[in-house]
Amino acid sequence: MTINYPGGKPFIQTTKSNEKKFSMTHSNRGMSLENEINLSNQFYLNNHIAVIHKKPTPIQIVNVDYPKRAAAKITEAYFKQPSTTDYNGVFKGKYIDFDAKETKNKTSFPLHNIHEHQINHLKECINVGGVGFFIIRFTSNKNKETYVVPAKYIFKYWDNQLNGSKSIKKDFLMNNGYLIPQKLNPVLPYLSAVDQMLTDNNY
Amino acid sequence: MTINYPGGKPFIQTTKSNEKKFSMTHSNRGMSLENEINLSNQFYLNNHIAVIHKKPTPIQIVNVDYPKRAAAKITEAYFKQPSTTDYNGVFKGKYIDFDAKETKNKTSFPLHNIHEHQINHLKECINVGGVGFFIIRFTSNKNKETYVVPAKYIFKYWDNQLNGSKSIKKDFLMNNGYLIPQKLNPVLPYLSAVDQMLTDNNY
Repeated sequence: MTINYPGGKPFIQTTKSNEKKFSMTHSNRGMSLENEINLSNQFYLNNHIAVIHKKPTPIQIVNVDYPKRAAAKITEAYFKQPSTTDYNGVFKGKYIDFDAKETKNKTSFPLHNIHEHQINHLKECINVGGVGFFIIRFTSNKNKETYVVPAKYIFKYWDNQLNGSKSIKKDFLMNNGYLIPQKLNPVLPYLSAVDQMLTDNNY
Repeated sequence: MTINYPGGKPFIQTTKSNEKKFSMTHSNRGMSLENEINLSNQFYLNNHIAVIHKKPTPIQIVNVDYPKRAAAKITEAYFKQPSTTDYNGVFKGKYIDFDAKETKNKTSFPLHNIHEHQINHLKECINVGGVGFFIIRFTSNKNKETYVVPAKYIFKYWDNQLNGSKSIKKDFLMNNGYLIPQKLNPVLPYLSAVDQMLTDNNY
């Protein structure tokens, strides 16, 4: 299903949503990565560990109906191109900014999962002292593996695409990223991995 | 015009939008506070000084039409209650979080301009090391005055509402806040005031 922006430019809803559907249909094992992050953020908020929220999808509202004694109903609106990543917030006084990606690929992470505005935004954030990373999940393996990968490693591959990088080997991400353990509460304790990244000054 | 959430709870679009209209109609002098902040944020981004964005309004999408060769059209959607402030980002490595308010009142700032979820969110952010404040503009005076006010001062009045605080005297905000100078570029150099606040460790 292709969605287009006004003007006809296609709206690409990052591959993760397709792969999410896949993982729901084919395995029926557990939640989407986005759900796990949202639940974990709620846990971190409730326990006063961090304040991190998913940004709402930007929408251009054109028409709203105001029925009496009922909710205002938006009757015409369009998707706008986002200019940032999906998540940001504060942890241990640090500005945290990231996006989450899933791949079915077993041995590498294809760069087409990432969008240019996400790279540009993360570069600007890091440039003024923020902490930027990607949460990358490999979904095909029996036990799905999820890594926190400092954005600087992704930049190197991204900027080298013209010279042939179309994907990043999983081995590289394993060696330079931080594996997130599987837990019950929070379901995806990604801030433990981020904490280690901060301790290593590796961002 | 009253907008309601699903369930009939009224959607209150912070008083600023009404007052904005007022200031546009009666004076025709210049932009709304929100526009000035957005333009200044663009200036700060372009000059690699800070990355601060206004969050999109949260919307619950119910129905979308996908016409061929045209933009996807949202045909049914509803406003959701936000749980954060409107602005956040990173400046000098610090997590920055704030909301912007305008009042026509000449001598005090009425607390009803602020919503409980904004206070709760700012308290959580500060609790984990973030920097929280309000940008407050007095629009009635010949030369409108705009202050950066550390959130901690607002909390004191907010938490004391049951004991009678319904507003904060302008004098108090002048003495404990930071006046934002009027400039051409950026039009509202609020980060100069924030920088002074950080230097004073007054947040």
